[in-house]
Amino acid sequence: MSESYTIGRYLIDRLAELGIRHIFGVPGDYNLSFLDQIIEHPALEWVGNCNELNAAYAADGYARIHGISALVTTFGVGELSAINGIAGSRAEQVPVVKITGSPTTKVAEEGRLVHHTLGDGEFDHFSKMYKEVTVAQALLTQDNATEEIDRVLRACWQEKGPVYINLPVDVHSLPAAPPSEPLLSETSAASEEALGEMLEALVPVIEHAKSPVILSDYQVNRFHAEKELARFAEQTGFPVATLSMGKSVFNEEHPQFIGVYSGKTSPDYLRKRIDEADCIISVGVKLTDSITSGFSQDFKEHAVIHINPEDVRYQNQSFSDISMAEALTHLAGKLSTRQPESLNIIPLVSQQKENPFYVESDHPLNQKRFWKMMQLFIQKNDVVIADQGTSFFGAQTVPLKNKVTYVGQPLWGSIGYTLPALLGTQLADLSRRNILLIGDGAFQLTFQEISTMMREDLHPIIFVINNDGYTVERSIHGPNQAYNDIKMWNYEAIPAVLGGNKNFKSYKTTTEGELADALKDMIAHPDALRFIEVVMEKMDMPELLTVLGKVFAAQND
Amino acid sequence: MSESYTIGRYLIDRLAELGIRHIFGVPGDYNLSFLDQIIEHPALEWVGNCNELNAAYAADGYARIHGISALVTTFGVGELSAINGIAGSRAEQVPVVKITGSPTTKVAEEGRLVHHTLGDGEFDHFSKMYKEVTVAQALLTQDNATEEIDRVLRACWQEKGPVYINLPVDVHSLPAAPPSEPLLSETSAASEEALGEMLEALVPVIEHAKSPVILSDYQVNRFHAEKELARFAEQTGFPVATLSMGKSVFNEEHPQFIGVYSGKTSPDYLRKRIDEADCIISVGVKLTDSITSGFSQDFKEHAVIHINPEDVRYQNQSFSDISMAEALTHLAGKLSTRQPESLNIIPLVSQQKENPFYVESDHPLNQKRFWKMMQLFIQKNDVVIADQGTSFFGAQTVPLKNKVTYVGQPLWGSIGYTLPALLGTQLADLSRRNILLIGDGAFQLTFQEISTMMREDLHPIIFVINNDGYTVERSIHGPNQAYNDIKMWNYEAIPAVLGGNKNFKSYKTTTEGELADALKDMIAHPDALRFIEVVMEKMDMPELLTVLGKVFAAQND
Repeated sequence: MSESYTIGRYLIDRLAELGIRHIFGVPGDYNLSFLDQIIEHPALEWVGNCNELNAAYAADGYARIHGISALVTTFGVGELSAINGIAGSRAEQVPVVKITGSPTTKVAEEGRLVHHTLGDGEFDHFSKMYKEVTVAQALLTQDNATEEIDRVLRACWQEKGPVYINLPVDVHSLPAAPPSEPLLSETSAASEEALGEMLEALVPVIEHAKSPVILSDYQVNRFHAEKELARFAEQTGFPVATLSMGKSVFNEEHPQFIGVYSGKTSPDYLRKRIDEADCIISVGVKLTDSITSGFSQDFKEHAVIHINPEDVRYQNQSFSDISMAEALTHLAGKLSTRQPESLNIIPLVSQQKENPFYVESDHPLNQKRFWKMMQLFIQKNDVVIADQGTSFFGAQTVPLKNKVTYVGQPLWGSIGYTLPALLGTQLADLSRRNILLIGDGAFQLTFQEISTMMREDLHPIIFVINNDGYTVERSIHGPNQAYNDIKMWNYEAIPAVLGGNKNFKSYKTTTEGELADALKDMIAHPDALRFIEVVMEKMDMPELLTVLGKVFAAQND
Repeated sequence: MSESYTIGRYLIDRLAELGIRHIFGVPGDYNLSFLDQIIEHPALEWVGNCNELNAAYAADGYARIHGISALVTTFGVGELSAINGIAGSRAEQVPVVKITGSPTTKVAEEGRLVHHTLGDGEFDHFSKMYKEVTVAQALLTQDNATEEIDRVLRACWQEKGPVYINLPVDVHSLPAAPPSEPLLSETSAASEEALGEMLEALVPVIEHAKSPVILSDYQVNRFHAEKELARFAEQTGFPVATLSMGKSVFNEEHPQFIGVYSGKTSPDYLRKRIDEADCIISVGVKLTDSITSGFSQDFKEHAVIHINPEDVRYQNQSFSDISMAEALTHLAGKLSTRQPESLNIIPLVSQQKENPFYVESDHPLNQKRFWKMMQLFIQKNDVVIADQGTSFFGAQTVPLKNKVTYVGQPLWGSIGYTLPALLGTQLADLSRRNILLIGDGAFQLTFQEISTMMREDLHPIIFVINNDGYTVERSIHGPNQAYNDIKMWNYEAIPAVLGGNKNFKSYKTTTEGELADALKDMIAHPDALRFIEVVMEKMDMPELLTVLGKVFAAQND
C-alpha cells in the first residue's frame, strides 16, 4: 500500500465528510483492495452483508436516518443483485452512493472475456442499467476521478437520490490530491425578489382562507425541513395532516395534528377537513396510489399551494429556486396566528381518547387489537419500520408519540425491504430503539440479514406477523390460491440458528396475554436482539387493507 | 374468468409446447390474475419461490437440464430483484423466458404514479434495463401479442439466451386465436454447397494432422450436440478434453477422454496434448479467464478449427449457416478412424488408477481428500452442481462417471447461484440424484430456497463446505481481512427451521470417518432431502484455486 494520497482515499474522505460512518456491501475480487482502504480509514466501519440486495436495503435504511449512505459491491453479479434496492432509493428519494468495484481499465478497454461479464467484451451494460435508476453516474479514471467524485456526491446530496460510481480496481490506488475545499458550499439562498413575489402572491391567499390546512409528506423528511414545518404550523395555528409515506414528519401528539390522510379511506373528520379545505398548504407531497387509496383524494387542485423541495407553485404561478425550508420560514414570518376555535381542529390525540384498551389474556391475536397494543408499546424517540403489507397498512393508523420516526416504502413497495433496512436504521443511531414490523411472506425474502445484526451486536425488536402467506396479495386477488401460500417455518428458532450466541430473546405468541408478557420481557431486556413471532389468522387484515385490496384489484382491471 | 381463448392462455400453451412443466416466480398484484391461468393449465405447475433472484436462479437451473424454462415476477421490484439471475443466463447462454406482470396499458399510457414505479410517470425504465441482458424483448398488446410471443420464444430457443416479455395485467385476459402452427419449424439444414466447401477445406487438414485433439465446451450442451460430439470422437478416435464450463459434455470414463483443460494449471500431459497439438477441433468453446487460469492457454490459433453453434471457422476461412451438430456429423462421415497407438492417448481413467484412496477415520476433513471422497460418492446419472468458489474449483478436478451432468457458472460467477439452481435442476428431472456443493459464504446469500425444495418434497443432497468465510476471496486478496469473514451459523439446524417436517436428514462432519458414515446413511435414505455440513479449515483450498487466486490478483493489478 502506497503512503501517498490516493483516489480511493479521496472518495472515502468525501464520504466521511458527508457524515457516513458505516459502509455496506459484499466483497468481490474487483473491490477487495478498495475495501482495504475502507478498513484502514479511521472514521469508517465496513459492514459486510449476507447479499447485495440486503446491502442496498441496509444502505437505504441508514440514509433515511443518517441523511446519506454508501455501499460497495463487485461488478456485474454484485451490482445487479443490488439494483432493486437502488431503484427503491430512487423512487423514494433516498441519497445512497452506490460504488461498484470493476475490472481494470486495461481489461475493459481490451474487451477481455473475464468473469462477471456477459462474455461479449462489452463493459458498459451495467452502468447503462444504473443510469435508469440513479440521478448521476461516473466512471472514474486517473484524470477525472476527484472532479467526478465531487460532482456525483453533490448530486446525491442535493437531489436526494442514489448515484453510481464505477471504480475500476486499478484506479483507486492511483495518486490524487486531497480535497482542498469542502464538498458542500453553503447552499445559495433564494433571491429577495423571488421570495418577495411569492409572499406577495401567497400571503393574502392564506390569510383569506377560511379552512386552511397543512398536508405534509415524505419530502419534508428527505429535505430536512421538519423544524421549519413545525414552526410554520405553530405560527399559523393551522391543522396538520400527513400522508402515510411522510408519517412522523410532524409530531402526532401535537394538538394541531389531525391524522394520516389516505383519501376516501380516511376517518370522516380528517377526510372532510382536507377534501373541503379552501386552502391546502401542501408540503413535499407526492400523491401515489398506495397512500391515497387509489387516487381517491377529493380536494380541488386550485386550492393547493405546493411547497416543493426547490420551488413553490400555486394555480398557474410558479416561484423558482426557493427551498422548502425557505418557503416555510418566510411565509411563517408574514402570516398571523389564527385562533384555534376558528380552525375546527380535532387533534388525533383527542380522537383516540375515547377508546381505552384492555388486554384480554386468552383473546387470540388479531390485527385490530394488535395495533392497539403496538400503540401502547411504541415510545417516544423509537424508530418504527413497517414492511409494505399488513404491517404498513396496520402501522399507518397507529398514532405515534413525539419524536418517533416512521419508515416505510409505500411507493416502491418491495416486500422484504424493511428487514435489511432495519440493520441500516439501527446502525445509523444506536441510541434509539428500533422496532420492525414485518409479515412472514416478506420476512422469507431477506431474513438472513438478522445474522449481520447479531454480528454487529445490535438490539432491535423484530415482530414477525405470521399469518401464513401473502395476506396483502390475498386482499387483492386469489385469497385461497396456492400462489399466496408459503412454507410454514419455525420462525422463533431463527435467531438461534443465525446467531449462535446468547445475546437474543425469542418469543412466539398467539394470544394477547402471551404478547403482553413478551412485551414486558422485551422491555426488561434492552441489551438483546428481541425477536417475536406473532401468530394471526391468514385472512385477518387491517381495516384499511380490506378497502385498499379492492381498490388495487379495480386498478388492475 | 372468460371461457374464450386468451392471450395469457396462448403464452402458457406455447411454454408448454416447448416442454416447460414448471413455472417459477413470486406473486404480485400485477401478475396474480395471470397466475390463475398458470394454475388452471393442465400441463404446468406453479412453483413459488422465496424471492425473485432465487426464482431466476431456479429457472436457470431448470433450463440447463430441461432445455428451457420460464419465470414470472411483478413489475419493478420483482423484475429488478431477478435481473442478476437473468444476466447470468445471458452470459452463460441459458434459455429462460422472463415474464413481467405490469400495470395496465391505461395506467402506463397515463403515466400514473402507481406503486412499483419510480414515481416519475415513466414505465419503460425496467424494460430498457432488460434489453441489456436479454436476446429479445416484447411489450404485449392486444394487437401484437401472439406474433410477439412467437418471435421472442423462437429467439429464446434458437439463440439460447433469456428473453423478456412485459405482460400488462389487463392484456392476458384479452381474446386471442389459439396457435395454428407449431412454434418451431424444422430447422433449415445447411446447404449442400456450404457443407461441401467445409468438407473440402477441412477434411485434408484434419487427416494430415499428426496430433489432432478435440477441445469441447459448454455450447455443446446448450445446442444439444452431445451425441454428435460423441460420434465424431468415436469415428475419428481423437482424444477429447473439455473446458470446466463444459465439464461432462463428454463421458469422462471414455477411453478417449483426457481431462479438463485449464491452461497452464492443467496436468502436464493434458496441457502438452492441447498446447502442442497441430490441429485442435474446438467445439463450442469460449475461452474466459476463470476456465483458462487467466488466459494461460498456449496453443496456436492457426491450429484451431472452430466449430461454433452456427458456423465453422478455420484460419481465415468461414463456413456459415452450418450448425454444430451438422458440422460434426458431416465431418465424421468423411474422416477415417485413427489407430489409438498413433494418438498418444492417456485416458483420464488410467491417470487416476494410480491413486487408490482410503478413508482415515480421525483425519480432519480437508479439500484434497474431500474431493477424493466425492469422486467415490458421485455415481452414474447424477447431476452435480458446484458453486463458484472452492466448490467449483475442487469439483472440476473430480473425474465423473458416465452420464453425470455437471452444472457450474464460471463465467458469470454469481455466488449463491447454485442453491436455488438446484431447485430447478432437481424439478427438471426427478429421476436423477442431484448433489449440490456450496461454500458457507455462498450459502448465506440464497439458502432460504431449501424451504421451496422441502415444500415440493424434493430429495437432493446438499453439501455445505463450512470454511468460515469467503475462502475464494481470501485466495485472491486479504486472507485475514475482516471483509472475508462471515457470521458462523448453526448450519445443520437449518433444514429443521425451514422444513418443519421430518422428511430430511441433517449431518455435521469434521473428520473423514464422520463424513464416510454420513455418506452411507445418505445413500440409505434416498427419499429425504439430505443436508450435510462439512467443516474445513478456512485457508484450506483446492490446489487449482491456490494458483488461480494469484492469477486473478495479478489480473486486477
